[in-house]
Amino acid sequence: MTTAPMTTAPITTAPMSAARLTTPPRTLRLNQADNVLIAVDSLPAGTALAEGLVALRHVQKGHKIAAAPIGSGEAIRKFGQIIGFAGVDIAAGDWVHEHNVRMQEFARDYAFASEAKPESGLLPGEAPATFEGFRRADGRVGTRNYIGILSSVNCSATVAEFIADAVTRSGMLDAYPNIDGVVAFTHGTGCGMGAKGEEFDILARTQWGYASHPNFAAVLLVGLGCEVFQIGRLKKEYGIVEGPHFQSLTIQETGGTRKSIEAGVAKIREMLPAANAVHRETVPASELVLALQCGGSDGYSGLTANPALGAAVDLLVRHGGTAILSETPEIFGAEHLLTRRAESEAVGRKIVDLIDWWTDYAARSGGELNNNPSPGNKAGGLTTILEKSLGAVAKGGTSTLRGVYRYAERIDRHGFVYMDTPGYDPVAATGQVAGGANVLCFTTGRGSAYGCKPTPSIKLATNSDLFARMEEDMDINCGDVLDGVSIEEKGREIFQMVLDIASGRRSKSELLGYGRNEFVPWQIGAVM
Amino acid sequence: MTTAPMTTAPITTAPMSAARLTTPPRTLRLNQADNVLIAVDSLPAGTALAEGLVALRHVQKGHKIAAAPIGSGEAIRKFGQIIGFAGVDIAAGDWVHEHNVRMQEFARDYAFASEAKPESGLLPGEAPATFEGFRRADGRVGTRNYIGILSSVNCSATVAEFIADAVTRSGMLDAYPNIDGVVAFTHGTGCGMGAKGEEFDILARTQWGYASHPNFAAVLLVGLGCEVFQIGRLKKEYGIVEGPHFQSLTIQETGGTRKSIEAGVAKIREMLPAANAVHRETVPASELVLALQCGGSDGYSGLTANPALGAAVDLLVRHGGTAILSETPEIFGAEHLLTRRAESEAVGRKIVDLIDWWTDYAARSGGELNNNPSPGNKAGGLTTILEKSLGAVAKGGTSTLRGVYRYAERIDRHGFVYMDTPGYDPVAATGQVAGGANVLCFTTGRGSAYGCKPTPSIKLATNSDLFARMEEDMDINCGDVLDGVSIEEKGREIFQMVLDIASGRRSKSELLGYGRNEFVPWQIGAVM
Ligand SMILES: [Ca+2]
Ligand SMILES: [Ca+2]
Ligand SMILES: [Ca+2]
Ligand SMILES: [Ca+2]
Ligand SMILES: [Ca+2]
Repeated sequence: MTTAPMTTAPITTAPMSAARLTTPPRTLRLNQADNVLIAVDSLPAGTALAEGLVALRHVQKGHKIAAAPIGSGEAIRKFGQIIGFAGVDIAAGDWVHEHNVRMQEFARDYAFASEAKPESGLLPGEAPATFEGFRRADGRVGTRNYIGILSSVNCSATVAEFIADAVTRSGMLDAYPNIDGVVAFTHGTGCGMGAKGEEFDILARTQWGYASHPNFAAVLLVGLGCEVFQIGRLKKEYGIVEGPHFQSLTIQETGGTRKSIEAGVAKIREMLPAANAVHRETVPASELVLALQCGGSDGYSGLTANPALGAAVDLLVRHGGTAILSETPEIFGAEHLLTRRAESEAVGRKIVDLIDWWTDYAARSGGELNNNPSPGNKAGGLTTILEKSLGAVAKGGTSTLRGVYRYAERIDRHGFVYMDTPGYDPVAATGQVAGGANVLCFTTGRGSAYGCKPTPSIKLATNSDLFARMEEDMDINCGDVLDGVSIEEKGREIFQMVLDIASGRRSKSELLGYGRNEFVPWQIGAVM
Repeated sequence: MTTAPMTTAPITTAPMSAARLTTPPRTLRLNQADNVLIAVDSLPAGTALAEGLVALRHVQKGHKIAAAPIGSGEAIRKFGQIIGFAGVDIAAGDWVHEHNVRMQEFARDYAFASEAKPESGLLPGEAPATFEGFRRADGRVGTRNYIGILSSVNCSATVAEFIADAVTRSGMLDAYPNIDGVVAFTHGTGCGMGAKGEEFDILARTQWGYASHPNFAAVLLVGLGCEVFQIGRLKKEYGIVEGPHFQSLTIQETGGTRKSIEAGVAKIREMLPAANAVHRETVPASELVLALQCGGSDGYSGLTANPALGAAVDLLVRHGGTAILSETPEIFGAEHLLTRRAESEAVGRKIVDLIDWWTDYAARSGGELNNNPSPGNKAGGLTTILEKSLGAVAKGGTSTLRGVYRYAERIDRHGFVYMDTPGYDPVAATGQVAGGANVLCFTTGRGSAYGCKPTPSIKLATNSDLFARMEEDMDINCGDVLDGVSIEEKGREIFQMVLDIASGRRSKSELLGYGRNEFVPWQIGAVM
C-alpha cells in the first residue's frame, strides 16, 4: 500500500492525543512517499518532532515541514503526489512554503487507466449494507418523498411558490403523512437566453432531472407561456407524457396569476393520494447515488474531511453504490489523478477535454481558472494550486473512475463517476441532484450554510473549532482526525450516517429547513 | 409636427369604432411620413380602405399595406422611420412583408444631438402634477415603505428568507401599520465569480442601490462569511456606516443558521419603530423615477401600449420627472433614434458604445444579438429587426436623452435617460430599481406575470383580448387605442395611474403579492 493514494494511507499522528499536553507538538504524515509532514500544532524552532526531526524554524499550524533533505529541483511530495519543486536545497526540519518551493510545468503523465482496478466487492465476512428507501416505478430508489413544483422561467417563480405555500398552509397535507412536503424550486433564468445549444440543453436536463428524480413522488411544472424555455418543447425532446407523476400548466393559457394558483393547487390535490401511498423498504446500498461537495474550504479540508469522505466513498463503491465527484475548476491541476484511475483511456480523455473546455471558457469570459491558493489559503499553509486541487480530489476516494458526465446528465453507471460542474456550491449540487443523487455529503472548513431538497445533505466539518461554533449546522466533526481518529474510522462513521440519513433520519440542514433557495441551475451563456 | 416621432403623431383609425360593424375593416396610420398603414382588422382582397386605398390582396391583422406606390429600392417607412427597403416595385394597396422587403446596410445617421431640444416645461395654465410620497433623509422620495433583507450570496438566501418569514409570522408588524412589509431579496450569485472588474461591480451597485433605495425604510444585509462578495468590502467601497437604516451580519461570525435568524429578527425588531415613523406628504411629480419595461411583446406592442407609455413619459418629463429606458438588446438597430435625441454628442456616443459592447459580448458568449423577428413576430406582421426595435423604443417618448447609465448605477439626472441592461425582464428591472426607480411601467402583449418589490409595477396590456383574459394581472388596457382612443389620451391615463400608484394605491401585481422572486441581479460573467 506504499504507493496508494492518501485516502487509504494510514494517518499517523505522533504522539497520540491522550498525551497531548505533555508531549511535543503534533505532525501528520499523509502518505509514506511524502517528503513533508503537516504541522498539526504550531511548531516552535528547535522543537523535537516525530520521525527524529527537529524544527529548524517556527512552522505555523497547517504548514509543511521537510521530513528529509530535499535537493534544489527535487519534487515536493504530499498526498504521495508532486505538489511542486524545491527552489533551493531544503534541510530536514525546515519550513516548506512559497519561499522555497516553485511550480514548473512538468509532464503530468495522464497514464490513462494505469491505476484502474476491478472493484474488490465486499470483504470476506462483510455484510452487505442496506438502507430503507422508496422503490419507484422506474426501479430507482428515493430517500425522500416530496412533491416538487418547478418553474420553467423566473416569470413563473412567484406562482410556483404561491402554489406550494397555498397547499402547505391549507392543512391538506395533514392527511398524507408519507409526503415530506410540497416545495417550489425557482430560479432566475429560462428566458433572455439562447434557444438552442448547450445553454438550453443544460436547463432542460436540469429540469427533467429534477422532475424525474426518485425523491419526488410527483412534480408540477409551471410556465409563463412566452418564455424561451418552452414546456412543450421539453416534453417533446424527453418524450414526456403527462400523468399522475408529472403535470404542467402555463399562466398565460390558464388566464393569469390567481387562476393559475387555483389550477396548480387543484393539480397537487389530485396528486396527493398516490404520492402518499408509498412505504420504505430495505434496499441494498448499491441504490445510493452520493453527491460529493466541498465549499468554504480551509487548510484542513484536504487533511481531514475530504480524505475521510474519500474513505466513505471507497466503502460505498465496495457495496456497489455510486459517488459523483464534480466542481471542475476546483480539480484543476489534479486531473492526472483521475485519468490514471479512469477505467479506460476514453473515459480518462473526457476529463482532459473538460479541463481544456474550462480553460477556453474562462478565457472567453474574460476570467481565468483562478484556483491559485488565495492569500487566506497561503496563510493556512497551502503553497500551490496542485496542493489545493489534490485536497479537493481526496473526497473522491481511490476507486476506479467509471464515467464522466455532462452537467445534470442522468448518472447511469455504478461506482465512482465524475460530473462536470462549476465549483460554486449550489450550482454544482443542482447538477448532481439533477443527475440522480439521492444523498449528498458536503465538507466545509469555514462553515457553509448549504442545504438541499429533495436530496438530504450531510455537512462534514473539517475542524473541531468550526464544529463547536456551528454545531446546529454540522452533522459530523472530522476535526478529530487531527486528534488521532483514523481516516478509515471516520470514513465508516460517514458511511453509516449516509445510510441513516438515506433511511429517513433528518440531517441538520433538513431540520433547519434548507433547500428551497439552493436550486440554482448553471447559467452557462450570456443573459440577453 | 409632421416629422415628429410616432408617439406624438395623431393615430387615426378609419372609420371610428362606433360604426365598426357596418364599415370596412380599419387601418392605422402611425406617422404622416409613413408609406405603409397597419391593418387593424383582417383586410380581404378588394376591400375599400381609408385614404382611398383598395387592398390588392388579403392582408392579415397587424400586417402592413402600402399607402402609396413604393419603387424598388425605396425606403419603407413606419413610425416615420426607415424599417427596410422595397425589394421590388410595390403598388399602393399591396401587402408589405418579407416577400417584398429587404434589409440592407444603410448609413443610419447618428446625427448626434440633432433633435435635442430644451424641455418645454408645463404648458400655459397646466397645473404641476404631484403625488403623496415619503421624503427620506437624503432628499429622495419613496413611494413605498418596506424593510428589506438582502443576501450577499446564495448561501445566505435561506437565512434571509427565514428572518423575513419569522418577523412576518410573529405578528410584531401589527403595531407598525406604516411599514409595507419585511421582504427578503435572494439571488443565485455572490460566489463562484470574479472578485474584481465589472462582474463584481455590477453586484455591488445592485446591492447598494437596493440597500439605499428610498422605498426602504431600512435594510439588513445577510452574508455567509467566506463568499467572494464580501460585505466588508462593499461597506468600504461605498463608505457605508452601519446605523438605523443599514445593518449587516454574517452566518459564520454569528455561529450558524439558528443564531443568525435570531440575530436578524432582533435587528429588524430594533428597526421597526423608526421605520414606522414616516408619513406621506405632497411632493412634485419631478420626484418620480419611472422604469420602462416591456416583455412578452406582440405585434401590438409597438402600436398601442409602447407609444401610449411614450406619451406618458413625455408628460412626466414635462413635469420635471425622470424616465429610464433600458433593454439594450431590444433596441438593437434603433440606436440612431436615441443618438439624435441625445443632449450632446458625448451622451449619444455612449449609446453607440453600448451597442458595440453588446455586439462583442454576444459574439464572445457564442450567441448573437438575435433580436430578429421570431417566427411568431413575423406571423404577427413584424418584417424586420428595425421595425421591432422601433416599437420597443416607442415607450421612451420623444424627450431629449439626458444621460446614459451603467447597469444599476444611481440615476442622478432628471428627464429621459437610458440605462444599459439585458432585455430579460427581471434582470433589466432589477438594474432600474437599483438605479433608484420608484415606480415602474411594464407593457406586455402575451401577458407577463412580472411584479416588483420595493417598487410598484404597473402592467399595460397591448391588446384587449389579453386584458380580458388576464384582467386580474393587468392595470391598464391599451388595446382600446385600436378602437379609437388616442395615444395622447392613453398617455394621460397612464400618467394619472403612475401618480396614483406612487401615492399608495396598490397595483394589480402588488395585490397578487409579486416581488420576492423578481430580484435577479445581472450575472455578466462565467460561473466558476
Ligand atoms: Ca432558486
Ligand atoms: Ca465548491
Ligand atoms: Ca425564493
Ligand atoms: Ca430572487
Ligand atoms: Ca424585456
